[in-house]
Amino acid sequence: VKLSQIGEFGLIDLIAKHESTRPDTIVGIGDDAAVLQIRNSKYEIRNKSKILKSKSKTYLLITTDTLVENVHFKLKKTSFYDLGYKALAINISDISAMGGWPTHALVTIGVPKTLSVKAIDELYKGINALARKHKIDIIGGDTVSSPREVIISITLLGEVEKENLLLRSTAKAGDFICVTGAFGGPAAANYEFRMYEPACRQAGAELRNIYSRKITKAHVATSMIDSSDGLVRSVLEICRASKVGARIYEDNVPISSGATLDQVLYGGEEYELVFSVPADKLAKLLSLKLGISIVGEIVGRKTGVKLVDRNGKLKSLKSGGYEHFK
Amino acid sequence: VKLSQIGEFGLIDLIAKHESTRPDTIVGIGDDAAVLQIRNSKYEIRNKSKILKSKSKTYLLITTDTLVENVHFKLKKTSFYDLGYKALAINISDISAMGGWPTHALVTIGVPKTLSVKAIDELYKGINALARKHKIDIIGGDTVSSPREVIISITLLGEVEKENLLLRSTAKAGDFICVTGAFGGPAAANYEFRMYEPACRQAGAELRNIYSRKITKAHVATSMIDSSDGLVRSVLEICRASKVGARIYEDNVPISSGATLDQVLYGGEEYELVFSVPADKLAKLLSLKLGISIVGEIVGRKTGVKLVDRNGKLKSLKSGGYEHFK
Repeated sequence: VKLSQIGEFGLIDLIAKHESTRPDTIVGIGDDAAVLQIRNSKYEIRNKSKILKSKSKTYLLITTDTLVENVHFKLKKTSFYDLGYKALAINISDISAMGGWPTHALVTIGVPKTLSVKAIDELYKGINALARKHKIDIIGGDTVSSPREVIISITLLGEVEKENLLLRSTAKAGDFICVTGAFGGPAAANYEFRMYEPACRQAGAELRNIYSRKITKAHVATSMIDSSDGLVRSVLEICRASKVGARIYEDNVPISSGATLDQVLYGGEEYELVFSVPADKLAKLLSLKLGISIVGEIVGRKTGVKLVDRNGKLKSLKSGGYEHFK
Repeated sequence: VKLSQIGEFGLIDLIAKHESTRPDTIVGIGDDAAVLQIRNSKYEIRNKSKILKSKSKTYLLITTDTLVENVHFKLKKTSFYDLGYKALAINISDISAMGGWPTHALVTIGVPKTLSVKAIDELYKGINALARKHKIDIIGGDTVSSPREVIISITLLGEVEKENLLLRSTAKAGDFICVTGAFGGPAAANYEFRMYEPACRQAGAELRNIYSRKITKAHVATSMIDSSDGLVRSVLEICRASKVGARIYEDNVPISSGATLDQVLYGGEEYELVFSVPADKLAKLLSLKLGISIVGEIVGRKTGVKLVDRNGKLKSLKSGGYEHFK
């Protein structure tokens, strides 16, 4: 069996089988970031009760995302500055989707020997520009030679108050599905950065982290995810993790200019926030004035995940969202 | 200027210029792992005093290492199981060199679409075999398509009691330079895993973490590093960070069978521990019965780093150790 047959999500299922065993692992594989209990104990862990007694007010968050040349980007179509900026932005998006704020990053680059030092310098300038905005320290990484493709992999640490942690797995039937921003833009731009980046930079990672913090501190959301693999895929992931179904109202999804309905639903790479909100919290959410859209509702598991067109007709999903191995 | 002209260490210098600004960053770029203060505050950091008041008894450690096909390994000469095992082992080595123990790992793999699912499964079996021994949880990662080369990148978290943290930068003139194990083996085996791995597995990462913990808990070492880039490079790094010089007694360095003197001094990839010990702590170290060898001494900065042959003659260094970009 080849990877191309099981796809990226099949591969993640394969890997996620390996269960967590440590009591300080609150959430392992399967959310936007892993969640760890920060301990105050002087000694190595012996039993679970020591962990539960932790006085720490926050959880540690950790996530990692990698960009590979000719898979995620083409050097002809992006600058090294934009590449560095985006590599950090997509990781910040994962921390935002947990309700937290980013703190420290490790940057690993794999580059051909023939690459110019100036290119590397530009890459780090892009990373640092965004890191400064978020008060993120670059604290390490690895620099390796890559025979052909440029690779950039960032691991980002973050923190979240325990009471403000947002997971994928806690949506409830009856909740509304809400989103920030609009969808389909990067797909309409043919997955290239040129059109995507200005939006990403101005209204992007930074703004969405502010939005996420406002939403989580207001305690109006029951679950959250980012839309890296497309709106439909994000809703599917929430539904799978929360053991619920969903209806997405096609006509209510905000459309980026120039995007087709397919790109809006399945395009991905917008890194918008997708989250569930109980009916009795909706007024409070709207009072935050974040320009949120309501795009659907969470229903019982048996209903599955369906699209509803403008005439109220149920439609089935086209695909599972963007997969790298297919 | 091309990367090949400035080399790996030149590149690290370029990157390390970006200084840490967060008060919870205890050590940023430049040691085997980064060191972070674990806080107990409910709120985002506003001032340094909050950090200094942390009641946590431990520091958080974090490191990352990446292996790229045809740079660090050839698939014809290693199994996927060994590759996974080694990818985690080299990260454990970095945590060991700080005096700490590993806790959680993120695993990122970049693989061609045509790779078999069985190969990935074997890779994870190798990682998990070593993870279980150390009670490490695999809590996340990323799976990406790589057009040609197989890439594996692991980020490893660890912990260390504050009083047991060992840095590179704290060696003192007059200290002895001590090492675990023997040198030159992987270089003699032509940097392939076949000969290296059995040793790595049995007497390797696991044992060295036990040794490191015994050494640090006995408070006999003033600094520590691992020998990933070769013994001489390790001593050079300690000297640079500690602003001292060193003499390495060629004849005292334990030699792996079949290795030449060049391979012993510059080969690398042994992942042995290299550490400095004050004269008055040497008896206590030896009483731990870890089979430690004394291979040199730390001297004043002006002397630089020199080799001493069996006739007591000073020799200059041949090179700066293994560099990936040269």
